[in-house]
Amino acid sequence: MVTRHVDLRSDTVTKPTEAMRVAMANAEVDDDVLGADPTAYRLESEMAKLMGKEAALFVPSGTMANLISVMVHCDVRGSEVILGDNCHIHVYENGGISTIGGVHPRTVKNKTDGTMDIAEIEAAIRHPDGELYYPSTRLICLENTHANSGGRCISVEYTDKVGEIAKRHGLKLHIDGARIFNASIALGVPVHRLVQAADSVSVCLSKGLGAPVGSVIVGSKSFITKAKRLRKTLGGGMRQVGVLCAAALVALRENVKKLEDDHRKAKILADGLNQIKQLSVDMSSVETNMVYFNILDSSVISPEKICEVLEEHGVLAMPASAVSVRLVLHHQISESDINYALTCIKQAVDQITTGATTK
Amino acid sequence: MVTRHVDLRSDTVTKPTEAMRVAMANAEVDDDVLGADPTAYRLESEMAKLMGKEAALFVPSGTMANLISVMVHCDVRGSEVILGDNCHIHVYENGGISTIGGVHPRTVKNKTDGTMDIAEIEAAIRHPDGELYYPSTRLICLENTHANSGGRCISVEYTDKVGEIAKRHGLKLHIDGARIFNASIALGVPVHRLVQAADSVSVCLSKGLGAPVGSVIVGSKSFITKAKRLRKTLGGGMRQVGVLCAAALVALRENVKKLEDDHRKAKILADGLNQIKQLSVDMSSVETNMVYFNILDSSVISPEKICEVLEEHGVLAMPASAVSVRLVLHHQISESDINYALTCIKQAVDQITTGATTK
Amino acid sequence: MVTRHVDLRSDTVTKPTEAMRVAMANAEVDDDVLGADPTAYRLESEMAKLMGKEAALFVPSGTMANLISVMVHCDVRGSEVILGDNCHIHVYENGGISTIGGVHPRTVKNKTDGTMDIAEIEAAIRHPDGELYYPSTRLICLENTHANSGGRCISVEYTDKVGEIAKRHGLKLHIDGARIFNASIALGVPVHRLVQAADSVSVCLSKGLGAPVGSVIVGSKSFITKAKRLRKTLGGGMRQVGVLCAAALVALRENVKKLEDDHRKAKILADGLNQIKQLSVDMSSVETNMVYFNILDSSVISPEKICEVLEEHGVLAMPASAVSVRLVLHHQISESDINYALTCIKQAVDQITTGATTK
Amino acid sequence: MVTRHVDLRSDTVTKPTEAMRVAMANAEVDDDVLGADPTAYRLESEMAKLMGKEAALFVPSGTMANLISVMVHCDVRGSEVILGDNCHIHVYENGGISTIGGVHPRTVKNKTDGTMDIAEIEAAIRHPDGELYYPSTRLICLENTHANSGGRCISVEYTDKVGEIAKRHGLKLHIDGARIFNASIALGVPVHRLVQAADSVSVCLSKGLGAPVGSVIVGSKSFITKAKRLRKTLGGGMRQVGVLCAAALVALRENVKKLEDDHRKAKILADGLNQIKQLSVDMSSVETNMVYFNILDSSVISPEKICEVLEEHGVLAMPASAVSVRLVLHHQISESDINYALTCIKQAVDQITTGATTK
Repeated sequence: MVTRHVDLRSDTVTKPTEAMRVAMANAEVDDDVLGADPTAYRLESEMAKLMGKEAALFVPSGTMANLISVMVHCDVRGSEVILGDNCHIHVYENGGISTIGGVHPRTVKNKTDGTMDIAEIEAAIRHPDGELYYPSTRLICLENTHANSGGRCISVEYTDKVGEIAKRHGLKLHIDGARIFNASIALGVPVHRLVQAADSVSVCLSKGLGAPVGSVIVGSKSFITKAKRLRKTLGGGMRQVGVLCAAALVALRENVKKLEDDHRKAKILADGLNQIKQLSVDMSSVETNMVYFNILDSSVISPEKICEVLEEHGVLAMPASAVSVRLVLHHQISESDINYALTCIKQAVDQITTGATTK
Repeated sequence: MVTRHVDLRSDTVTKPTEAMRVAMANAEVDDDVLGADPTAYRLESEMAKLMGKEAALFVPSGTMANLISVMVHCDVRGSEVILGDNCHIHVYENGGISTIGGVHPRTVKNKTDGTMDIAEIEAAIRHPDGELYYPSTRLICLENTHANSGGRCISVEYTDKVGEIAKRHGLKLHIDGARIFNASIALGVPVHRLVQAADSVSVCLSKGLGAPVGSVIVGSKSFITKAKRLRKTLGGGMRQVGVLCAAALVALRENVKKLEDDHRKAKILADGLNQIKQLSVDMSSVETNMVYFNILDSSVISPEKICEVLEEHGVLAMPASAVSVRLVLHHQISESDINYALTCIKQAVDQITTGATTK
Repeated sequence: MVTRHVDLRSDTVTKPTEAMRVAMANAEVDDDVLGADPTAYRLESEMAKLMGKEAALFVPSGTMANLISVMVHCDVRGSEVILGDNCHIHVYENGGISTIGGVHPRTVKNKTDGTMDIAEIEAAIRHPDGELYYPSTRLICLENTHANSGGRCISVEYTDKVGEIAKRHGLKLHIDGARIFNASIALGVPVHRLVQAADSVSVCLSKGLGAPVGSVIVGSKSFITKAKRLRKTLGGGMRQVGVLCAAALVALRENVKKLEDDHRKAKILADGLNQIKQLSVDMSSVETNMVYFNILDSSVISPEKICEVLEEHGVLAMPASAVSVRLVLHHQISESDINYALTCIKQAVDQITTGATTK
Repeated sequence: MVTRHVDLRSDTVTKPTEAMRVAMANAEVDDDVLGADPTAYRLESEMAKLMGKEAALFVPSGTMANLISVMVHCDVRGSEVILGDNCHIHVYENGGISTIGGVHPRTVKNKTDGTMDIAEIEAAIRHPDGELYYPSTRLICLENTHANSGGRCISVEYTDKVGEIAKRHGLKLHIDGARIFNASIALGVPVHRLVQAADSVSVCLSKGLGAPVGSVIVGSKSFITKAKRLRKTLGGGMRQVGVLCAAALVALRENVKKLEDDHRKAKILADGLNQIKQLSVDMSSVETNMVYFNILDSSVISPEKICEVLEEHGVLAMPASAVSVRLVLHHQISESDINYALTCIKQAVDQITTGATTK
């Protein structure tokens, strides 16, 4: 019988806090499709200001935030976007930019730190007046923090450099900033400075920030005007959406500051994992709230098997590859939860190894 | 100074009730993108049962509900949908079925009662093995109640007949049932019977039912499985969405029964308008919660002008055409509000007429 | 045994003339995808000049000519085109503007003369800065001659009026001029004048003009530059295409003047048909090279049946509706062919009527 | 003054032979859109038989051949195709499979021999019932010969292996066989055997085979039926297309056998280039009719510069990268042309080097 429940699959699993629930219950709302919801307005204004952009738009999900951003920047048919081959947009969003948006993705290899080689980015650019058989590059996308590289941060210097390339070639720069606040805190750089070079940023409120639902897109006024129309087309326009925005405002006010603690806890967890001899964590990759551990002999201990055994003890984790498992920290995971998880992981490893041996 | 506020623009402007706010605050939630939110599950189960379909899916808006439905039924490239030339999907949803879905719309004239001529529907059908230069009809759409015809109800007999045509030709039938409960109540037909012939139905929770956000799609299990994937692609997958579903469950339980009263109030309003000699309402069109009044001499009183004057008195209405204005009732409009609105309308008409005369 | 073959299904069935065959055999060619084919260049220059436009582009078909034109004018996502509900683009081109181009069609009823009501066109226009739930109208399409109305001509006055509306609203005007030379000749208006108000025109070379393959798009230089890129994307870029263009140049030089004779022959055929008492032709609709005859009692003589019987005598015709049959004249149909066809039609009508009677 | 003209840019620049011109002039033709052109029928039958497939379809270009093939195999929205990051479809076809077809490309690195790592292909496959955020892989594409790797051949063993993976996962295999006859001849494998594992193949007639225009797609009957409809939608349906097919039939009959000689001439050219000390050719890459030479010190001799100097002597070549130039052989390049080209290249190299030195 499971007596304890520690969900380390993602920071999307957070539950709304008491303060958020109170805020939702008391939210001042109106019809946001008619442009009248005061709480949505408040959230969007606050986010735009925080990110140093002219305007903002609340949307139901990070996937829609990215889809809208790419589609607005690439609103002319025949557009191409340059993005990392291991980024969230390319790998985890159903190929929507192509299958819904008709935008051609041109991938550049993501390095282990989540960046792409600057020269390769520039070499990949193709111009609207280029060869007749080339699509026109109109956008470059970065992801910060970069989830598939372990939640590593993209530096302000790198971002500026990519922004400079984009500007020089007449392209736009979008940042998938689902976890941009984690990056800002880990790097010690104000978030508006971190995204200064970007024409648009998507920010997720329902990951580490803990709001129940929603992301926000920020950008110029004209970009957001187009984004609003596309949000309506895609079906992301919501009526009394202030109930969600009220929770998101609490998230912004109360939970940004908690992210630092998530990063600290990630390091504790990583350290603990490194003491289990069959496992290893590259400590240099633990920059924010994610921990990927490698299984040294995955022929004995498969990621699926270890997650399965852990689940029996109420600890949820996600296989990340054929040899690794992903664990994500958030404000509702305590140090005691981490200790419990470490104990369970140690036991699971022993159990599988022994089982394998005795077979 | 406006002392009173009566918003008759749409039934989308309802505010969440106290019960809904309490429900949101106490909602049991989990990550619905991971398929784990118990309140979303409850709402979807309840709605599927009510509508007599196998499965259901909560989405952020009616526009997404229709977009997903059309795209799933027409998931093979080269598909055509037959729908009314005056229906919501064709006129008010940004052309999303074409511009996002790549589905070709073939319109049939909507009659004043919101139906299409049965023979014209059948004549419009084009088969997958038809002429090489024809797209393949895969879907017929109805809208019930039909907003642009004044919220009139589509009968069960008519719906069955269209369903029979669809079946005979191997097509699907989708009902845009944004206000299907209004139709069910006005016709005295259980809602599941009314949509029996349909392969899918979209139902709106944030119109007359008064929930803050959301619609539900119902259909077969395999249809909903595809819809779920497409919802994710479009960015309509939300995390702890139970907070919205909790309000929607209250809407379903408490507000369906209030719709009848909305219809009664619509008739009172229509009667009152008919007593203003410069205006007229076709009483036969007032079947549910909408009232369209015609301005007899629109060269003197334009719809825009009358709405503008009304706004000064806190009464909000929407021009519907060059000669008519739309008013929509919902559970937060009282009889006293109606009387106030009627008084304001009478005054506005007088004021404009006099102003026009004295000029 | 069929001893004679008179194909009246369409003017697309013409065979290349001896002069065209010689021209093809001797065509000076080069790689047109590399922009080097001199014969393609000659054809495009000549056509641009004839049509009074800056530039031209040879494409494999009228369908591609229209598809490219609509997609270039509507190259921003979320565009809407206004076009006749009975026009070729909407009815016979597979819905490609939606299913390939993602453009939303908004149809206006075609009158029996092939035009649309001017006021209805203007009322259908929706602006980019309009309601959030409206697509943006970017294009109006006309078809001249209008095939489904019997090949009737759209006047220069009407075209100018629509062009003026387009200009006033910032829209483009495209003319599907598959048979624009027929219109020009029938109206006695130089073709460049007839299309003066249009931003683009597609002209077919393989209909009445008798070339084996191809259409040409004309428009401004910047329009054609975009069209060229899109032609490549769609796969319409061809290598030593001069072999086709050489035949097309012959068509332009030798066959435009023959169209007048096709119109004369159409009137002869129509007259003859009107003398068959079970049939009738509206003579006012016979303006160019098409003749549609109605069957007075189609319960006895169905269009399919009459075409079937005619085929046994080597006369090919096309059912056009449940009560009518389409016949199309071209330069390879002689007066003797017409007499033969009339005799066969008379016999077929008698045979079917008698058969029906004796059954 | 240029006295000689040797175009080595591509094998697409071939001019139709006398036999082709005669064939075009005498082609038996009819309206192929109505399915009646006997010469198109003959070409398609012959090609289907040669390739060992049920059916075939003539299209205006290789780009359309590939676009149609990918779109037919991926006709359900939300599809993904796995293809080489350096293949023609991904790099040189305007991103049409995404921007027109709405298909999501997932690239796997092309090795220098034009293949992709088998394990990487398999790892990239994502199933229709997989994670909600994954598109569904429906197709794998190979290119044989692989142009960007120097025209190298993909072996029958490799192709079979990829075909086996495709089958095992329920996917289709398409081969971009623009130069499949070159591969067949170079490998000494009958072309039908080489493409046995493929569900569809596109074959180009206007490259080394020397026909003026066109490609053919081969596959199953049901595949070709769908392809035909899509060809019409894209505007690739042509009327008396037999004039082109007649030339293509000559190409098939007379020029396939000449390819071997092109390969021999490529080796002569490559050998000659290797004797120029500032240049080098990897002889192992010269398997068919392409030669890429590397410039050892590209800071002195840029590809653009050398091509520019060559053009002054009537020799046309194409820069292939920052350090290399592409030369393509075909049946209209004689050994004397090769010697002339080699002389010119040697001179150009000397001239640039000296110029650089003396500056």
